[in-house]
Amino acid sequence: MKILDGKKTGNDIKSEIADQVLQLKKSGKRPPHLAAVLVGNDGASLTYVGSKVRSCERIGYESTLIKLPEETTEQTLLNQIQELNTNPAIDGFIVQLPLPAHIDEEKILMAVDPKKDVDGFHPTNFGKMALDMETFIPATPFGIMELIRRYDLDISGKHAVIIGRSHIVGRPMSILLSRKSSPGNATVTLTHSRTKNLSEITKQADIVVSALGVPNFLKANMVKQGAIVIDVGITRVPDESHPKGYVITGDVDFEAVRHKASYITPVPGGVGPMTIAMLLQNTFLAYSRYAN
Amino acid sequence: MKILDGKKTGNDIKSEIADQVLQLKKSGKRPPHLAAVLVGNDGASLTYVGSKVRSCERIGYESTLIKLPEETTEQTLLNQIQELNTNPAIDGFIVQLPLPAHIDEEKILMAVDPKKDVDGFHPTNFGKMALDMETFIPATPFGIMELIRRYDLDISGKHAVIIGRSHIVGRPMSILLSRKSSPGNATVTLTHSRTKNLSEITKQADIVVSALGVPNFLKANMVKQGAIVIDVGITRVPDESHPKGYVITGDVDFEAVRHKASYITPVPGGVGPMTIAMLLQNTFLAYSRYAN
Repeated sequence: MKILDGKKTGNDIKSEIADQVLQLKKSGKRPPHLAAVLVGNDGASLTYVGSKVRSCERIGYESTLIKLPEETTEQTLLNQIQELNTNPAIDGFIVQLPLPAHIDEEKILMAVDPKKDVDGFHPTNFGKMALDMETFIPATPFGIMELIRRYDLDISGKHAVIIGRSHIVGRPMSILLSRKSSPGNATVTLTHSRTKNLSEITKQADIVVSALGVPNFLKANMVKQGAIVIDVGITRVPDESHPKGYVITGDVDFEAVRHKASYITPVPGGVGPMTIAMLLQNTFLAYSRYAN
Repeated sequence: MKILDGKKTGNDIKSEIADQVLQLKKSGKRPPHLAAVLVGNDGASLTYVGSKVRSCERIGYESTLIKLPEETTEQTLLNQIQELNTNPAIDGFIVQLPLPAHIDEEKILMAVDPKKDVDGFHPTNFGKMALDMETFIPATPFGIMELIRRYDLDISGKHAVIIGRSHIVGRPMSILLSRKSSPGNATVTLTHSRTKNLSEITKQADIVVSALGVPNFLKANMVKQGAIVIDVGITRVPDESHPKGYVITGDVDFEAVRHKASYITPVPGGVGPMTIAMLLQNTFLAYSRYAN
Protein backbone atom coordinates (compact mmCIF):
# COMPACT_ATOMS: atom_id res chain seq x y z
CA MET A 1 0.00 0.00 0.00
CA LYS A 2 1.20 3.45 -0.91
CA ILE A 3 -0.19 6.74 0.39
CA LEU A 4 -1.31 9.29 -2.19
CA ASP A 5 0.14 12.23 -0.34
CA GLY A 6 -2.03 15.22 -1.19
CA LYS A 7 -0.28 17.44 1.28
CA LYS A 8 3.13 16.93 -0.28
CA THR A 9 1.78 17.03 -3.85
CA GLY A 10 -0.27 20.14 -3.11
CA ASN A 11 2.85 21.78 -1.69
CA ASP A 12 4.83 20.80 -4.79
CA ILE A 13 2.21 22.47 -6.98
CA LYS A 14 2.18 25.58 -4.81
CA SER A 15 5.99 25.78 -4.98
CA GLU A 16 5.86 25.51 -8.76
CA ILE A 17 3.28 28.29 -8.95
CA ALA A 18 5.29 30.42 -6.49
CA ASP A 19 8.32 30.09 -8.80
CA GLN A 20 6.26 31.24 -11.76
CA VAL A 21 4.89 34.19 -9.78
CA LEU A 22 8.42 35.17 -8.84
CA GLN A 23 9.40 35.14 -12.52
CA LEU A 24 6.38 37.31 -13.36
CA LYS A 25 7.31 39.85 -10.71
CA LYS A 26 10.96 39.88 -11.83
CA SER A 27 9.84 40.71 -15.34
CA GLY A 28 7.81 43.63 -14.02
CA LYS A 29 4.38 42.01 -14.27
CA ARG A 30 1.72 42.02 -11.57
CA PRO A 31 0.95 38.68 -9.85
CA PRO A 32 -2.38 36.85 -10.23
CA HIS A 33 -5.16 38.11 -7.98
CA LEU A 34 -7.86 35.91 -6.43
CA ALA A 35 -10.88 37.31 -4.61
CA ALA A 36 -13.20 35.36 -2.32
CA VAL A 37 -16.69 36.41 -1.29
CA LEU A 38 -18.04 35.11 2.00
CA VAL A 39 -21.58 35.80 3.14
CA GLY A 40 -22.40 35.17 6.81
CA ASN A 41 -20.48 33.49 9.61
CA ASP A 42 -20.54 29.74 8.95
CA GLY A 43 -17.57 28.29 10.86
CA ALA A 44 -16.42 25.79 8.24
CA SER A 45 -16.76 28.37 5.47
CA LEU A 46 -14.65 30.86 7.43
CA THR A 47 -11.96 28.19 7.85
CA TYR A 48 -11.96 27.25 4.16
CA VAL A 49 -11.88 30.81 2.89
CA GLY A 50 -9.22 31.80 5.39
CA SER A 51 -7.08 28.90 4.25
CA LYS A 52 -7.49 29.90 0.58
CA VAL A 53 -6.49 33.49 1.30
CA ARG A 54 -3.41 32.44 3.30
CA SER A 55 -2.35 30.11 0.48
CA CYS A 56 -2.55 33.01 -1.95
CA GLU A 57 -0.31 35.10 0.24
CA ARG A 58 2.26 32.32 0.61
CA ILE A 59 2.72 31.86 -3.13
CA GLY A 60 2.85 35.57 -3.90
CA TYR A 61 -0.66 36.12 -5.28
CA GLU A 62 -2.69 39.18 -4.49
CA SER A 63 -5.83 38.22 -2.62
CA THR A 64 -8.97 39.99 -1.51
CA LEU A 65 -11.46 38.67 1.02
CA ILE A 66 -14.88 40.27 0.83
CA LYS A 67 -16.90 39.49 3.95
CA LEU A 68 -20.56 40.37 3.75
CA PRO A 69 -23.05 40.11 6.63
CA GLU A 70 -25.55 37.23 6.87
CA GLU A 71 -28.44 39.58 6.00
CA THR A 72 -26.89 40.71 2.67
CA THR A 73 -29.59 40.85 -0.02
CA GLU A 74 -29.38 38.89 -3.23
CA GLN A 75 -29.19 42.14 -5.19
CA THR A 76 -26.27 43.44 -3.11
CA LEU A 77 -24.41 40.21 -3.73
CA LEU A 78 -25.20 40.39 -7.46
CA ASN A 79 -23.83 43.94 -7.53
CA GLN A 80 -20.68 42.76 -5.77
CA ILE A 81 -20.25 40.01 -8.36
CA GLN A 82 -20.74 42.49 -11.18
CA GLU A 83 -18.00 44.65 -9.67
CA LEU A 84 -15.63 41.67 -9.56
CA ASN A 85 -16.58 40.64 -13.12
CA THR A 86 -15.59 44.03 -14.49
CA ASN A 87 -12.62 44.80 -12.23
CA PRO A 88 -9.53 44.27 -14.44
CA ALA A 89 -7.29 43.81 -11.37
CA ILE A 90 -9.13 40.60 -10.36
CA ASP A 91 -8.29 37.46 -12.37
CA GLY A 92 -10.64 35.07 -10.67
CA PHE A 93 -13.01 34.88 -7.75
CA ILE A 94 -15.06 32.43 -5.78
CA VAL A 95 -18.31 32.78 -3.90
CA GLN A 96 -18.02 30.48 -0.90
CA LEU A 97 -20.95 28.05 -0.59
CA PRO A 98 -23.34 27.48 1.06
CA LEU A 99 -25.07 30.86 0.86
CA PRO A 100 -27.78 31.96 3.31
CA ALA A 101 -31.20 30.49 2.50
CA HIS A 102 -32.70 33.79 1.26
CA ILE A 103 -30.20 33.94 -1.63
CA ASP A 104 -30.74 31.91 -4.82
CA GLU A 105 -27.47 30.02 -5.25
CA GLU A 106 -28.16 29.19 -8.90
CA LYS A 107 -28.75 32.85 -9.75
CA ILE A 108 -25.48 33.81 -8.07
CA LEU A 109 -23.42 31.15 -9.85
CA MET A 110 -24.95 32.19 -13.18
CA ALA A 111 -23.88 35.80 -12.57
CA VAL A 112 -20.16 34.98 -12.34
CA ASP A 113 -18.28 35.74 -15.56
CA PRO A 114 -17.17 32.29 -16.84
CA LYS A 115 -13.73 33.77 -17.56
CA LYS A 116 -13.26 34.47 -13.83
CA ASP A 117 -15.09 31.36 -12.57
CA VAL A 118 -12.06 29.62 -11.06
CA ASP A 119 -14.35 27.24 -9.14
CA GLY A 120 -15.60 25.92 -12.50
CA PHE A 121 -19.21 25.91 -11.26
CA HIS A 122 -20.76 28.02 -14.06
CA PRO A 123 -22.76 25.87 -16.50
CA THR A 124 -20.75 27.19 -19.45
CA ASN A 125 -17.54 25.93 -17.86
CA PHE A 126 -19.15 22.71 -16.69
CA GLY A 127 -20.48 22.08 -20.19
CA LYS A 128 -17.10 22.78 -21.75
CA MET A 129 -15.56 20.22 -19.42
CA ALA A 130 -18.16 17.62 -20.44
CA LEU A 131 -17.54 18.45 -24.12
CA ASP A 132 -13.74 18.23 -23.82
CA MET A 133 -13.13 21.93 -24.36
CA GLU A 134 -10.60 24.13 -22.53
CA THR A 135 -12.15 25.46 -19.32
CA PHE A 136 -11.79 25.66 -15.53
CA ILE A 137 -12.26 22.27 -13.91
CA PRO A 138 -13.79 22.30 -10.40
CA ALA A 139 -10.92 22.23 -7.93
CA THR A 140 -11.66 18.99 -6.06
CA PRO A 141 -12.06 16.76 -9.14
CA PHE A 142 -9.15 18.61 -10.78
CA GLY A 143 -7.04 17.86 -7.70
CA ILE A 144 -7.89 14.15 -7.83
CA MET A 145 -6.99 13.96 -11.53
CA GLU A 146 -3.72 15.77 -10.82
CA LEU A 147 -2.91 13.35 -7.99
CA ILE A 148 -3.50 10.44 -10.39
CA ARG A 149 -1.32 12.15 -12.99
CA ARG A 150 1.57 12.95 -10.66
CA TYR A 151 1.62 9.45 -9.19
CA ASP A 152 1.52 8.13 -12.76
CA LEU A 153 -1.35 5.75 -12.00
CA ASP A 154 -2.53 3.88 -15.08
CA ILE A 155 -6.32 4.11 -15.11
CA SER A 156 -6.97 3.66 -18.85
CA GLY A 157 -9.45 0.84 -19.38
CA LYS A 158 -9.77 0.31 -15.63
CA HIS A 159 -13.12 0.28 -13.84
CA ALA A 160 -13.70 3.34 -11.66
CA VAL A 161 -16.67 3.44 -9.27
CA ILE A 162 -17.77 6.78 -7.88
CA ILE A 163 -19.96 7.03 -4.80
CA GLY A 164 -22.08 10.19 -4.82
CA ARG A 165 -23.43 12.30 -7.70
CA SER A 166 -22.91 15.84 -6.36
CA HIS A 167 -22.34 18.70 -8.79
CA ILE A 168 -18.99 19.54 -7.27
CA VAL A 169 -17.42 16.08 -6.97
CA GLY A 170 -19.26 12.96 -8.12
CA ARG A 171 -20.69 14.21 -11.40
CA PRO A 172 -17.53 15.96 -12.63
CA MET A 173 -15.37 12.99 -11.53
CA SER A 174 -17.55 10.67 -13.62
CA ILE A 175 -16.90 12.88 -16.62
CA LEU A 176 -13.18 13.42 -16.09
CA LEU A 177 -12.28 9.79 -15.41
CA SER A 178 -14.07 8.63 -18.57
CA ARG A 179 -12.79 11.34 -20.90
CA LYS A 180 -10.59 10.48 -23.86
CA SER A 181 -7.44 11.93 -22.28
CA SER A 182 -4.55 11.07 -20.02
CA PRO A 183 -5.27 10.48 -17.23
CA GLY A 184 -8.71 9.27 -18.27
CA ASN A 185 -10.21 6.53 -20.45
CA ALA A 186 -11.55 4.65 -17.41
CA THR A 187 -14.82 2.75 -17.54
CA VAL A 188 -16.88 4.67 -15.01
CA THR A 189 -19.83 3.67 -12.84
CA LEU A 190 -21.60 6.48 -10.99
CA THR A 191 -23.45 5.30 -7.89
CA HIS A 192 -25.65 7.24 -5.47
CA SER A 193 -28.33 7.00 -2.82
CA ARG A 194 -30.67 4.99 -5.07
CA THR A 195 -28.06 2.43 -6.08
CA LYS A 196 -28.90 -1.15 -5.13
CA ASN A 197 -26.21 -3.63 -4.03
CA LEU A 198 -23.57 -0.91 -3.79
CA SER A 199 -20.92 -3.18 -2.33
CA GLU A 200 -21.34 -5.64 -5.23
CA ILE A 201 -20.37 -2.75 -7.49
CA THR A 202 -17.55 -1.25 -5.42
CA LYS A 203 -15.99 -4.73 -5.09
CA GLN A 204 -15.48 -4.74 -8.87
CA ALA A 205 -13.70 -1.40 -8.88
CA ASP A 206 -10.05 -0.89 -9.75
CA ILE A 207 -10.53 2.70 -8.54
CA VAL A 208 -13.04 3.82 -5.91
CA VAL A 209 -13.82 7.50 -5.37
CA SER A 210 -16.00 8.08 -2.33
CA ALA A 211 -17.69 11.49 -2.09
CA LEU A 212 -20.57 10.71 0.21
CA GLY A 213 -19.80 12.56 3.44
CA VAL A 214 -20.55 9.60 5.72
CA PRO A 215 -17.64 8.90 8.10
CA ASN A 216 -16.03 5.45 7.73
CA PHE A 217 -18.70 4.34 5.24
CA LEU A 218 -16.43 2.38 2.91
CA LYS A 219 -15.38 -0.83 4.67
CA ALA A 220 -12.64 -3.27 3.71
CA ASN A 221 -15.17 -5.87 2.54
CA MET A 222 -16.47 -3.38 -0.06
CA VAL A 223 -13.08 -3.00 -1.75
CA LYS A 224 -11.16 -5.27 -4.10
CA GLN A 225 -7.59 -6.27 -3.22
CA GLY A 226 -5.22 -3.83 -4.94
CA ALA A 227 -7.76 -1.09 -5.64
CA ILE A 228 -6.90 2.61 -5.74
CA VAL A 229 -9.01 4.32 -3.07
CA ILE A 230 -9.74 8.06 -3.18
CA ASP A 231 -11.48 9.54 -0.13
CA VAL A 232 -13.24 12.86 -0.70
CA GLY A 233 -15.17 12.82 2.58
CA ILE A 234 -14.40 15.58 5.08
CA THR A 235 -16.92 15.31 7.89
CA ARG A 236 -16.38 17.07 11.22
CA VAL A 237 -16.95 14.41 13.85
CA PRO A 238 -17.28 15.76 17.42
CA ASP A 239 -14.33 14.68 19.58
CA GLU A 240 -13.83 16.25 23.01
CA SER A 241 -10.24 15.00 23.21
CA HIS A 242 -9.19 17.34 20.40
CA PRO A 243 -8.52 21.04 20.97
CA LYS A 244 -10.94 22.03 18.18
CA GLY A 245 -13.64 19.74 19.60
CA TYR A 246 -13.86 17.70 16.40
CA VAL A 247 -11.81 15.56 14.05
CA ILE A 248 -12.00 15.63 10.25
CA THR A 249 -13.08 12.15 9.19
CA GLY A 250 -13.17 10.62 5.71
CA ASP A 251 -15.67 8.28 4.04
CA VAL A 252 -13.16 5.43 4.13
CA ASP A 253 -12.49 3.12 7.08
CA PHE A 254 -8.82 3.93 6.55
CA GLU A 255 -7.14 1.56 8.99
CA ALA A 256 -8.93 -1.46 7.54
CA VAL A 257 -9.05 -0.47 3.87
CA ARG A 258 -5.39 0.54 3.67
CA HIS A 259 -4.34 -3.11 3.88
CA LYS A 260 -6.28 -3.97 0.73
CA ALA A 261 -5.63 -0.85 -1.33
CA SER A 262 -2.66 -0.42 -3.67
CA TYR A 263 -2.92 3.37 -3.26
CA ILE A 264 -5.02 5.36 -0.85
CA THR A 265 -5.58 9.01 0.08
CA PRO A 266 -5.55 9.82 3.81
CA VAL A 267 -7.95 12.25 5.50
CA PRO A 268 -6.71 14.81 6.28
CA GLY A 269 -3.75 15.27 3.93
CA GLY A 270 -5.22 13.70 0.80
CA VAL A 271 -7.77 15.34 -1.46
CA GLY A 272 -8.22 18.46 0.73
CA PRO A 273 -4.83 20.09 0.15
CA MET A 274 -5.07 19.26 -3.56
CA THR A 275 -8.32 21.21 -3.78
CA ILE A 276 -6.68 24.42 -2.63
CA ALA A 277 -3.67 23.86 -4.88
CA MET A 278 -5.92 23.48 -7.93
CA LEU A 279 -7.92 26.59 -7.07
CA LEU A 280 -4.60 28.45 -7.17
CA GLN A 281 -3.75 26.68 -10.42
CA ASN A 282 -7.10 27.76 -11.94
CA THR A 283 -6.39 31.33 -10.87
CA PHE A 284 -3.06 31.13 -12.65
CA LEU A 285 -4.83 29.82 -15.75
CA ALA A 286 -7.33 32.70 -15.59
CA TYR A 287 -4.45 35.16 -15.32
CA SER A 288 -2.56 33.57 -18.22
CA ARG A 289 -5.58 33.34 -20.49
CA TYR A 290 -7.31 36.63 -19.95
CA ALA A 291 -5.13 39.18 -18.06
CA ASN A 292 -3.51 41.93 -20.11
CA MET B 1 -40.59 -9.06 -25.21
CA LYS B 2 -42.23 -5.77 -26.01
CA ILE B 3 -41.22 -3.35 -28.75
CA LEU B 4 -40.51 0.25 -27.71
CA ASP B 5 -42.25 1.76 -30.70
CA GLY B 6 -40.49 5.04 -31.42
CA LYS B 7 -42.42 5.58 -34.60
CA LYS B 8 -45.78 5.47 -32.88
CA THR B 9 -44.58 7.40 -29.83
CA GLY B 10 -42.90 10.02 -32.02
CA ASN B 11 -46.15 10.40 -33.96
CA ASP B 12 -48.10 10.77 -30.70
CA ILE B 13 -45.77 13.58 -29.64
CA LYS B 14 -46.05 15.26 -33.02
CA SER B 15 -49.86 15.06 -32.85
CA GLU B 16 -49.84 16.63 -29.40
CA ILE B 17 -47.62 19.46 -30.63
CA ALA B 18 -49.78 19.91 -33.73
CA ASP B 19 -52.82 20.34 -31.47
CA GLN B 20 -51.01 23.00 -29.47
CA VAL B 21 -49.96 24.80 -32.65
CA LEU B 22 -53.55 24.78 -33.83
CA GLN B 23 -54.64 26.39 -30.56
CA LEU B 24 -51.94 29.03 -30.93
CA LYS B 25 -53.07 29.88 -34.43
CA LYS B 26 -56.74 29.98 -33.35
CA SER B 27 -55.83 32.51 -30.68
CA GLY B 28 -54.14 34.70 -33.29
CA LYS B 29 -50.56 33.82 -32.42
CA ARG B 30 -47.85 32.86 -34.86
CA PRO B 31 -46.61 29.24 -34.82
CA PRO B 32 -43.08 28.23 -33.71
CA HIS B 33 -40.41 28.61 -36.38
CA LEU B 34 -37.41 26.29 -36.77
CA ALA B 35 -34.53 27.01 -39.13
CA ALA B 36 -31.91 24.52 -40.31
CA VAL B 37 -28.55 25.38 -41.81
CA LEU B 38 -26.95 22.85 -44.13
CA VAL B 39 -23.47 23.34 -45.56
CA GLY B 40 -22.47 21.15 -48.52
CA ASN B 41 -24.07 18.13 -50.13
CA ASP B 42 -23.58 15.18 -47.78
CA GLY B 43 -26.28 12.62 -48.69
CA ALA B 44 -27.21 11.55 -45.16
CA SER B 45 -27.28 15.17 -43.95
CA LEU B 46 -29.61 16.14 -46.80
CA THR B 47 -31.93 13.29 -45.82
CA TYR B 48 -31.94 14.22 -42.12
CA VAL B 49 -32.49 17.92 -42.69
CA GLY B 50 -35.18 17.27 -45.28
CA SER B 51 -36.99 15.02 -42.85
CA LYS B 52 -36.82 17.68 -40.10
CA VAL B 53 -38.22 20.36 -42.39
CA ARG B 54 -41.07 18.11 -43.56
CA SER B 55 -41.94 17.28 -39.96
CA CYS B 56 -42.18 20.99 -39.18
CA GLU B 57 -44.59 21.49 -42.02
CA ARG B 58 -46.78 18.57 -40.97
CA ILE B 59 -47.30 19.88 -37.45
CA GLY B 60 -47.92 23.47 -38.52
CA TYR B 61 -44.53 25.03 -37.68
CA GLU B 62 -42.88 27.57 -39.88
CA SER B 63 -39.58 26.24 -41.17
CA THR B 64 -36.66 27.65 -43.09
CA LEU B 65 -33.94 25.61 -44.76
CA ILE B 66 -30.75 27.51 -45.45
CA LYS B 67 -28.55 25.60 -47.89
CA LEU B 68 -25.02 26.91 -48.23
CA PRO B 69 -22.42 25.64 -50.72
CA GLU B 70 -19.60 23.32 -49.64
CA GLU B 71 -17.04 26.12 -50.08
CA THR B 72 -18.81 28.50 -47.64
CA THR B 73 -16.24 30.23 -45.42
CA GLU B 74 -16.34 30.01 -41.66
CA GLN B 75 -16.98 33.76 -41.47
CA THR B 76 -19.96 33.55 -43.83
CA LEU B 77 -21.43 30.79 -41.70
CA LEU B 78 -20.79 32.81 -38.52
CA ASN B 79 -22.59 35.77 -40.11
CA GLN B 80 -25.51 33.52 -41.00
CA ILE B 81 -25.69 32.29 -37.42
CA GLN B 82 -25.59 35.85 -36.12
CA GLU B 83 -28.52 36.68 -38.39
CA LEU B 84 -30.51 33.75 -37.00
CA ASN B 85 -29.55 34.65 -33.41
CA THR B 86 -31.00 38.13 -33.78
CA ASN B 87 -33.97 37.36 -36.05
CA PRO B 88 -37.04 37.56 -33.76
CA ALA B 89 -39.11 35.44 -36.17
CA ILE B 90 -36.86 32.39 -35.59
CA ASP B 91 -37.37 30.50 -32.30
CA GLY B 92 -34.68 27.91 -32.73
CA PHE B 93 -32.23 26.64 -35.30
CA ILE B 94 -29.84 23.82 -35.93
CA VAL B 95 -26.58 23.64 -37.84
CA GLN B 96 -26.49 20.19 -39.39
CA LEU B 97 -23.29 18.29 -38.61
CA PRO B 98 -20.78 17.29 -39.85
CA LEU B 99 -19.49 20.55 -41.32
CA PRO B 100 -16.86 20.68 -44.09
CA ALA B 101 -13.31 20.21 -42.76
CA HIS B 102 -12.27 23.85 -43.29
CA ILE B 103 -14.87 25.04 -40.75
CA ASP B 104 -14.16 24.83 -37.00
CA GLU B 105 -17.21 23.00 -35.63
CA GLU B 106 -16.55 24.10 -32.04
CA LYS B 107 -16.42 27.76 -33.03
CA ILE B 108 -19.72 27.39 -34.88
CA LEU B 109 -21.52 25.67 -31.99
CA MET B 110 -20.22 28.33 -29.59
CA ALA B 111 -21.70 31.06 -31.82
CA VAL B 112 -25.29 29.79 -31.52
CA ASP B 113 -27.36 31.74 -28.98
CA PRO B 114 -28.07 29.20 -26.19
CA LYS B 115 -31.69 30.41 -26.18
CA LYS B 116 -32.11 29.19 -29.75
CA ASP B 117 -29.88 26.12 -29.45
CA VAL B 118 -32.63 23.52 -29.86
CA ASP B 119 -30.01 20.81 -30.50
CA GLY B 120 -28.72 21.40 -26.95
CA PHE B 121 -25.10 21.25 -28.15
CA HIS B 122 -23.91 24.61 -26.73
CA PRO B 123 -21.72 24.14 -23.61
CA THR B 124 -23.97 26.44 -21.59
CA ASN B 125 -26.95 24.20 -22.29
CA PHE B 126 -24.94 21.03 -21.83
CA GLY B 127 -23.63 22.30 -18.49
CA LYS B 128 -27.13 23.24 -17.36
CA MET B 129 -28.28 19.70 -18.14
CA ALA B 130 -25.41 18.25 -16.09
CA LEU B 131 -26.24 20.64 -13.23
CA ASP B 132 -29.99 19.82 -13.26
CA MET B 133 -31.05 23.24 -14.55
CA GLU B 134 -33.76 23.98 -17.12
CA THR B 135 -32.29 23.80 -20.61
CA PHE B 136 -32.56 22.14 -24.03
CA ILE B 137 -31.63 18.47 -23.87
CA PRO B 138 -30.00 17.02 -27.01
CA ALA B 139 -32.75 15.43 -29.07
CA THR B 140 -31.57 11.82 -29.21
CA PRO B 141 -31.00 11.38 -25.43
CA PHE B 142 -34.17 13.41 -24.79
CA GLY B 143 -36.05 11.02 -27.08
CA ILE B 144 -34.76 7.96 -25.24
CA MET B 145 -35.75 9.44 -21.87
CA GLU B 146 -39.20 10.29 -23.26
CA LEU B 147 -39.62 6.74 -24.58
CA ILE B 148 -38.74 5.41 -21.11
CA ARG B 149 -41.20 7.85 -19.56
CA ARG B 150 -44.10 7.10 -21.88
CA TYR B 151 -43.67 3.34 -21.54
CA ASP B 152 -43.51 3.89 -17.77
CA LEU B 153 -40.34 1.82 -17.39
CA ASP B 154 -39.05 1.78 -13.83
CA ILE B 155 -35.32 2.47 -14.03
CA SER B 156 -34.75 3.93 -10.54
CA GLY B 157 -31.94 2.03 -8.81
CA LYS B 158 -31.44 -0.16 -11.88
CA HIS B 159 -28.07 -0.61 -13.54
CA ALA B 160 -27.79 1.08 -16.92
CA VAL B 161 -24.80 0.41 -19.16
CA ILE B 162 -24.08 2.79 -22.01
CA ILE B 163 -21.84 1.82 -24.90
CA GLY B 164 -20.09 4.84 -26.44
CA ARG B 165 -19.13 8.22 -24.95
CA SER B 166 -20.03 10.61 -27.79
CA HIS B 167 -21.02 14.18 -26.99
CA ILE B 168 -24.40 13.77 -28.64
CA VAL B 169 -25.52 10.42 -27.21
CA GLY B 170 -23.36 8.47 -24.76
CA ARG B 171 -22.18 11.29 -22.52
CA PRO B 172 -25.58 13.02 -22.15
CA MET B 173 -27.33 9.65 -21.66
CA SER B 174 -24.95 8.88 -18.79
CA ILE B 175 -25.95 12.15 -17.15
CA LEU B 176 -29.71 11.89 -17.77
CA LEU B 177 -30.12 8.29 -16.63
CA SER B 178 -28.30 9.00 -13.35
CA ARG B 179 -29.97 12.32 -12.53
CA LYS B 180 -32.15 12.70 -9.48
CA SER B 181 -35.40 12.83 -11.44
CA SER B 182 -38.08 10.66 -12.94
CA PRO B 183 -37.21 8.91 -15.13
CA GLY B 184 -33.69 8.76 -13.75
CA ASN B 185 -31.93 7.58 -10.59
CA ALA B 186 -30.28 4.68 -12.41
CA THR B 187 -26.80 3.49 -11.50
CA VAL B 188 -24.92 4.22 -14.71
CA THR B 189 -21.80 2.69 -16.22
CA LEU B 190 -20.34 4.47 -19.24
CA THR B 191 -18.25 2.20 -21.47
CA HIS B 192 -16.25 3.01 -24.59
CA SER B 193 -13.46 1.89 -26.92
CA ARG B 194 -10.96 1.50 -24.05
CA THR B 195 -13.27 -0.58 -21.86
CA LYS B 196 -11.96 -4.04 -21.03
CA ASN B 197 -14.28 -7.07 -20.74
CA LEU B 198 -17.22 -5.14 -22.14
CA SER B 199 -19.55 -8.13 -22.27
CA GLU B 200 -18.91 -8.86 -18.57
CA ILE B 201 -20.30 -5.38 -17.90
CA THR B 202 -23.21 -5.42 -20.36
CA LYS B 203 -24.32 -8.80 -18.96
CA GLN B 204 -24.94 -7.08 -15.60
CA ALA B 205 -27.13 -4.37 -17.13
CA ASP B 206 -30.83 -3.96 -16.50
CA ILE B 207 -30.77 -1.35 -19.27
CA VAL B 208 -28.33 -1.30 -22.20
CA VAL B 209 -27.99 1.74 -24.44
CA SER B 210 -25.80 1.08 -27.47
CA ALA B 211 -24.53 4.14 -29.33
CA LEU B 212 -21.51 2.74 -31.09
CA GLY B 213 -22.38 2.72 -34.77
CA VAL B 214 -21.20 -0.85 -35.41
CA PRO B 215 -23.92 -2.95 -37.08
CA ASN B 216 -25.11 -5.97 -35.07
CA PHE B 217 -22.42 -5.44 -32.43
CA LEU B 218 -24.51 -6.34 -29.39
CA LYS B 219 -25.09 -10.09 -29.39
CA ALA B 220 -27.54 -12.11 -27.29
CA ASN B 221 -24.74 -13.50 -25.10
CA MET B 222 -23.85 -9.94 -24.02
CA VAL B 223 -27.32 -9.24 -22.64
CA LYS B 224 -29.02 -10.33 -19.42
CA GLN B 225 -32.41 -12.05 -19.60
CA GLY B 226 -35.11 -9.41 -19.18
CA ALA B 227 -32.95 -6.38 -19.96
CA ILE B 228 -34.25 -3.21 -21.59
CA VAL B 229 -32.30 -2.71 -24.82
CA ILE B 230 -32.04 0.69 -26.52
CA ASP B 231 -30.39 0.75 -29.94
CA VAL B 232 -29.07 4.13 -31.07
CA GLY B 233 -27.06 2.78 -34.01
CA ILE B 234 -28.05 3.90 -37.49
CA THR B 235 -25.43 2.66 -39.92
CA ARG B 236 -26.06 2.54 -43.66
CA VAL B 237 -25.08 -0.95 -44.74
CA PRO B 238 -24.81 -1.42 -48.55
CA ASP B 239 -27.53 -3.76 -49.83
CA GLU B 240 -28.10 -4.09 -53.56
CA SER B 241 -31.49 -5.71 -53.07
CA HIS B 242 -32.92 -2.47 -51.67
CA PRO B 243 -34.03 0.40 -53.90
CA LYS B 244 -31.83 2.88 -51.99
CA GLY B 245 -28.81 0.54 -52.24
CA TYR B 246 -28.47 0.33 -48.44
CA VAL B 247 -30.33 -0.66 -45.30
CA ILE B 248 -30.27 1.21 -41.99
CA THR B 249 -28.81 -1.19 -39.44
CA GLY B 250 -28.65 -0.87 -35.66
CA ASP B 251 -25.94 -1.82 -33.16
CA VAL B 252 -28.08 -4.63 -31.80
CA ASP B 253 -28.36 -8.13 -33.27
CA PHE B 254 -32.11 -7.62 -33.08
CA GLU B 255 -33.41 -11.07 -34.07
CA ALA B 256 -31.31 -12.80 -31.41
CA VAL B 257 -31.42 -10.18 -28.65
CA ARG B 258 -35.20 -9.66 -28.85
CA HIS B 259 -35.79 -13.07 -27.29
CA LYS B 260 -33.85 -12.09 -24.14
CA ALA B 261 -34.96 -8.46 -23.80
CA SER B 262 -38.02 -7.35 -21.85
CA TYR B 263 -38.24 -4.21 -24.01
CA ILE B 264 -36.30 -3.36 -27.15
CA THR B 265 -36.17 -0.54 -29.71
CA PRO B 266 -36.17 -1.61 -33.36
CA VAL B 267 -34.03 0.01 -36.08
CA PRO B 268 -35.55 1.72 -37.95
CA GLY B 269 -38.62 2.86 -36.02
CA GLY B 270 -37.07 3.16 -32.56
CA VAL B 271 -34.82 5.99 -31.43
CA GLY B 272 -34.67 7.72 -34.83
CA PRO B 273 -38.27 8.99 -34.99
CA MET B 274 -38.05 10.05 -31.33
CA THR B 275 -35.07 12.27 -32.16
CA ILE B 276 -37.05 14.31 -34.66
CA ALA B 277 -40.05 14.53 -32.31
CA MET B 278 -37.87 15.91 -29.51
CA LEU B 279 -36.25 18.47 -31.81
CA LEU B 280 -39.76 19.73 -32.49
CA GLN B 281 -40.49 19.62 -28.77
CA ASN B 282 -37.34 21.69 -28.04
CA THR B 283 -38.45 24.21 -30.65
CA PHE B 284 -41.80 24.48 -28.90
CA LEU B 285 -39.97 25.03 -25.59
CA ALA B 286 -37.84 27.77 -27.17
CA TYR B 287 -41.00 29.42 -28.49
CA SER B 288 -42.76 29.17 -25.13
CA ARG B 289 -39.79 30.41 -23.11
CA TYR B 290 -38.50 33.24 -25.22
CA ALA B 291 -40.88 34.30 -28.01
CA ASN B 292 -42.89 37.48 -27.50
